[in-house]
Amino acid sequence: MIVGILGGGQLARMLALAGVPLGIETVVVDPSPSPCAALVARHVAAPYDDAEALDRLSGLCDVVTCDFENVPAAALERVARTTRVYPGARSLAVLQDRLTEKTCFSELGIPTPRFHPATSPGELRDAIESIGMPCVVKSRRFGYDGKGQAVIDRLEDVDRADELLAASSVIVESFIPFEHEVALVAARSTSGEHVYYPLVESHHVDGILRWVVPIDAPELQQQAEQYAGRLLDELGHVGALGFEFFRTSDGLLANEAAPRVHNTGHWTIEGAATSQFENHLRAIAGLPLGNTATTGFAGNVNFIGSVPDPADVLAVEGAHHHDYGKEPRPGRKVGHATVVTKDVESRDAGLVRLRELAEAALR
Amino acid sequence: MIVGILGGGQLARMLALAGVPLGIETVVVDPSPSPCAALVARHVAAPYDDAEALDRLSGLCDVVTCDFENVPAAALERVARTTRVYPGARSLAVLQDRLTEKTCFSELGIPTPRFHPATSPGELRDAIESIGMPCVVKSRRFGYDGKGQAVIDRLEDVDRADELLAASSVIVESFIPFEHEVALVAARSTSGEHVYYPLVESHHVDGILRWVVPIDAPELQQQAEQYAGRLLDELGHVGALGFEFFRTSDGLLANEAAPRVHNTGHWTIEGAATSQFENHLRAIAGLPLGNTATTGFAGNVNFIGSVPDPADVLAVEGAHHHDYGKEPRPGRKVGHATVVTKDVESRDAGLVRLRELAEAALR
Repeated sequence: MIVGILGGGQLARMLALAGVPLGIETVVVDPSPSPCAALVARHVAAPYDDAEALDRLSGLCDVVTCDFENVPAAALERVARTTRVYPGARSLAVLQDRLTEKTCFSELGIPTPRFHPATSPGELRDAIESIGMPCVVKSRRFGYDGKGQAVIDRLEDVDRADELLAASSVIVESFIPFEHEVALVAARSTSGEHVYYPLVESHHVDGILRWVVPIDAPELQQQAEQYAGRLLDELGHVGALGFEFFRTSDGLLANEAAPRVHNTGHWTIEGAATSQFENHLRAIAGLPLGNTATTGFAGNVNFIGSVPDPADVLAVEGAHHHDYGKEPRPGRKVGHATVVTKDVESRDAGLVRLRELAEAALR
Repeated sequence: MIVGILGGGQLARMLALAGVPLGIETVVVDPSPSPCAALVARHVAAPYDDAEALDRLSGLCDVVTCDFENVPAAALERVARTTRVYPGARSLAVLQDRLTEKTCFSELGIPTPRFHPATSPGELRDAIESIGMPCVVKSRRFGYDGKGQAVIDRLEDVDRADELLAASSVIVESFIPFEHEVALVAARSTSGEHVYYPLVESHHVDGILRWVVPIDAPELQQQAEQYAGRLLDELGHVGALGFEFFRTSDGLLANEAAPRVHNTGHWTIEGAATSQFENHLRAIAGLPLGNTATTGFAGNVNFIGSVPDPADVLAVEGAHHHDYGKEPRPGRKVGHATVVTKDVESRDAGLVRLRELAEAALR
């Protein structure tokens, strides 16, 4: 089987690696001359609106997927004329826009922060008044890693939000005080089979995910799986999906969902019986989904900007090193390490050490 | 880091896959126009005595290894002039020849079946008389999967052994009645660090390994580790090594050792904290070796000749599918499946089902 991927970053690279044992070959379309997935996948260097490249992809592949959610809808529509595309247009259309996304959550009975859309400076001020301060103004489209957001706690700051309006319609959300976010990675196959990984605590710095640790919280897990299950079925979603929540004293509030393998699920490569990458491929290939149970006490640390010396990383008990083969650049996700141990204490000690190494690599 | 591999079969392919996350790129030299490792490694298509190709390899690579033990010594010597080569010449020289191999075992106090060399029909008959019948006559070099061997239990059959003599010197060994073999995969790094995986029972049909299951046998484990440790240090070996033993009522008798990753260790990809492929690369790259503990109850089944439908394989609880991407051909190792579960019963049931699927795929 040949799987096409729109986007050739580290997610595509880890998908391609997971595919090889399954007999799945991978072709990526990416405008970059040498995207990091090209080491292990065939690469078609073209922009996502290149009709000829898209037709070549659909001619080569049995099924096409993507490694980022902001794939132009027109590209997917073109590929879908002749080839199966998972996730489908509905998953992307709903989840690419924070307004349709949050509206969908609400309609499914999934609690969210209060939200209100705005398309003009007047509407924005009305929306802020309606939601109350502090609030967060977010671009409806193309936000990631905290970009395209502004926290407003005084009316004098509203000018900063006006800048966001210039680029896109926005959504105003109530500001949720939270200690950390939690995230659930789920997958749904062409047959409608669902699987869920353990919830993780996810810790961000400057809007970028720094480290995650799976938690054992049966009630929260059940709540998150119910919400994700509703969303997967409503969208008719096929493939992996990462669902991020704020953990509050009143339970989970849905923040956002990404219709793809997710940075909060990288620990599953060594820390779960079947990785999120393998389960995404199994899901879109119509194969039975794999066991999502943990193999030990796991956690993972992202390498942002630069990758530490692998000898230091691998000296940590139970550590596994992942270098994405990308040029170092401030704020860029260039690798990660996962630690899996037999007890909580050594896992936690390993995570502390890996975070030190991640920080030290930046100096 | 760039690692070169002489040989581009499934072992090279699994090494290449293990290297990608570590930031290790792979180049294979293989005379075949499309060896199965070429999907994930750069491929230099050349015979092993092609000086230009070998020089190109050593120019490209930081370290060179091999995926089979019968690499011509001259090829390794040429590469070693300018590049580090692991395992070293001594590991290969000793273990390529059943006589030097068994002699080395004996000198290290590692019990073996009784053995005697022969280079002529007269010596062969003397050797058979000295060892006694039944005995096994084996080519000293280039044997694999039971090829190059003849069991002699009547003097009338000695003509079959004469054929072996025509091709190579032989060794005559006492025939060991055994229920199954056991095998130990070990690894030793450039720093002299050792690790050992759990012993496995290995089951052969027609001389070809069909399935393995790790066993929990502390005394045998300790004995095997002592023997392997002596051998690793004696050879100054760097990399993985597979050591096969006959399990008898008197303990372990050494059969043979292969200075490379080993078919009896494929289960470690999902069934151990660190795979044999990753530990081979860590060993030759001078990185700390990884934990070899099991992640559950594991076992694996080889696919010989043809690969079953992955949907059937993956419907087995805890199963992982490995298709090497090779053309089906009788007797050829074309894939394997590993099962990892939380209890012995479901592991054993999974192995039974996988063996059925492996058999059914041949019909």
